[in-house]
Amino acid sequence: MLARMTEPRALVRITRTRLADGRALTYYDDREPYVSGAATRTLDDPRDLSPSQALPTMRLDVLTGEWVVLAPHRMGRTHLPGTRGCPLCPSRDGAMTEIPARDYDVVVFDNRFPALGSPLHAAAAAVPPLVDGDPLWPQRQAIGRCEVVCFTSEHDSSCAGLTPSRAATVIEAWADRTRALSGADGVRQVFCFENRGAETGVTLHHPHGQIYAYPFVPPRTERLLARAAAHRDSTGADLLSDLLAAELRAGTRIVHRGAAWTAYVPAAARWPVEVHLVPHRAVPDLAALDSAERRELATLYPALLRRVDGFFADQGDPGPVPYVAGWHQAPVGPGRHLTRLHLQLFSVRRAAGKLKYLAGSESGVGVWLNDTTPERIAHRLRELT
Amino acid sequence: MLARMTEPRALVRITRTRLADGRALTYYDDREPYVSGAATRTLDDPRDLSPSQALPTMRLDVLTGEWVVLAPHRMGRTHLPGTRGCPLCPSRDGAMTEIPARDYDVVVFDNRFPALGSPLHAAAAAVPPLVDGDPLWPQRQAIGRCEVVCFTSEHDSSCAGLTPSRAATVIEAWADRTRALSGADGVRQVFCFENRGAETGVTLHHPHGQIYAYPFVPPRTERLLARAAAHRDSTGADLLSDLLAAELRAGTRIVHRGAAWTAYVPAAARWPVEVHLVPHRAVPDLAALDSAERRELATLYPALLRRVDGFFADQGDPGPVPYVAGWHQAPVGPGRHLTRLHLQLFSVRRAAGKLKYLAGSESGVGVWLNDTTPERIAHRLRELT
Repeated sequence: MLARMTEPRALVRITRTRLADGRALTYYDDREPYVSGAATRTLDDPRDLSPSQALPTMRLDVLTGEWVVLAPHRMGRTHLPGTRGCPLCPSRDGAMTEIPARDYDVVVFDNRFPALGSPLHAAAAAVPPLVDGDPLWPQRQAIGRCEVVCFTSEHDSSCAGLTPSRAATVIEAWADRTRALSGADGVRQVFCFENRGAETGVTLHHPHGQIYAYPFVPPRTERLLARAAAHRDSTGADLLSDLLAAELRAGTRIVHRGAAWTAYVPAAARWPVEVHLVPHRAVPDLAALDSAERRELATLYPALLRRVDGFFADQGDPGPVPYVAGWHQAPVGPGRHLTRLHLQLFSVRRAAGKLKYLAGSESGVGVWLNDTTPERIAHRLRELT
Repeated sequence: MLARMTEPRALVRITRTRLADGRALTYYDDREPYVSGAATRTLDDPRDLSPSQALPTMRLDVLTGEWVVLAPHRMGRTHLPGTRGCPLCPSRDGAMTEIPARDYDVVVFDNRFPALGSPLHAAAAAVPPLVDGDPLWPQRQAIGRCEVVCFTSEHDSSCAGLTPSRAATVIEAWADRTRALSGADGVRQVFCFENRGAETGVTLHHPHGQIYAYPFVPPRTERLLARAAAHRDSTGADLLSDLLAAELRAGTRIVHRGAAWTAYVPAAARWPVEVHLVPHRAVPDLAALDSAERRELATLYPALLRRVDGFFADQGDPGPVPYVAGWHQAPVGPGRHLTRLHLQLFSVRRAAGKLKYLAGSESGVGVWLNDTTPERIAHRLRELT
């Protein structure tokens, strides 16, 4: 079950292997002596894990035209274990975790409870193309990829607390996986994201993010592509480039202007804390960032997360603040030229001790209500240098 | 400030008045001696309330084409007071609440902290049509209506616990307000809904719902209209009528089949508990229901809520279960003929003690993941007769 490949790289050493049940795992090592990848004898996963038989499906919602993923096997997934049983910590003292190494820097592996099945599962069973045989209800196997990215082996750390060199390794991992998954059969969009805090549904506290490779273009991206196409038709210009230029011109919502990146609060921010981070150069995805852009991002990204963590400190809430950080990348295939890489970082916290819930207006009909203004959000984020 | 009008009706007596700050309040009395409306001397609101200066705005999200409502004055709204300070209880013993009557059956009034300003506010101040003068960022006053519907004067009751006769009064109130608001200037959709439980953002526990009258067609409805138009173009038939027929034919997700109404779990349910309730007759909104349909609904609706309350009882969770219940009505104006009345009732609870959070996939890119199947949901709801 062990396939090994070690690729030397300038800064990061990449070592690919497999877990006992066949899932892929990749180490990204940034320090001598390459604690995980170099210590090859630790690569074996001795656990007796049988390959998952889970077969998520997806159905087209006839009322919205959107695919909904059904993954009933996820109901029993690991839920907020203590440090002792954390499956994302290194394997130590005979306790085997998901990472069969005594230490690691950054590691990426296939989720044991994936919402999207891997092509390995696809062969297992077909699903009928229509639910109950009715053309109103198309159905497919939900084939894609769900990966877990561990940002550090330190259980009680956070992404906001990463050193620039470790953040640079995370960026290398995101870029490497984006490149690989974009070339995989059937993948239409690669989404690297982090959910932080129990209020965003996090079931494991160890600092980690996720990568979903969807077999369709997600609804938010579909709408963005439609908007960008209309903008190009009417102006001949690129929507997201015009938007960045407009934010820089207005200046009222800029949080940080760097050499290669700008962070701003969008003019129609829908979350009580929301900030976007965009590279000045129009690139489709993380894989296309050059080394200067990656270097700046490695400092800027954890710093932006720290600003969010401090957002409610003046209300007596010391943080950490729950957030979702999502990298919107250009889709693979049609529409790729219409959009460009941008980060959307937002929190459901609306005040110290209070959350923004998605109630009737948001969840029922899709109208977002925000109890603040984008300019106030930007003002507060700017204060938190 | 008091404008009074009393309309005798067959079952429900409607009395319209105004609160001290000019907000409209309507009593729907279903019992002799018409405890609120008839006791006219209790109609005066002696409070010293100055009219709200709040002026919510809305901005078009350039990335999605959706209006986002900004209502910063809502940040300070009343948050989970005890029974003693409940603003939705009747005014008693000298303690004035939002309802200046010693008792009531059902009452509807303008929200004191509205997300959508009333036309009264519109005259107060104009907002620039573009944020920072840039055509990428259209902006408007958010003019519409936000009303509160108190289902009963009993603070510790619930909508699920309403008697059929009281539920019938609630339906009359919804129908009356839908009719009135549909005729108001600029209103494009009337949405009657209930958020129940702190997990759906409820800030007051007294049994109540809300009515929002939006000045635009909300995103979910826009998508439904596009789907229905495409279905009509390709088949010549009505999407929602075909959908009901298909659910009845398949039978696999039917929860209840009545004389005039059917409840089913949609084939692509996106919430861990979700059920739709539709009248057999194609009607645009609640106001168009005939008396037989209203009578059946008055029994069926609380019974459906009780099924949801019992959903996790077999896991040791006695309820109540948090839910959002939203009445999707046909929009006013263009597209009205493309859709019809249906209720969407769903919960964010995914297991006893566990919630479905909207994390990266849902909040970031709009892809819903459901850890169960529609058929399992329907099976469980059917058990709970």
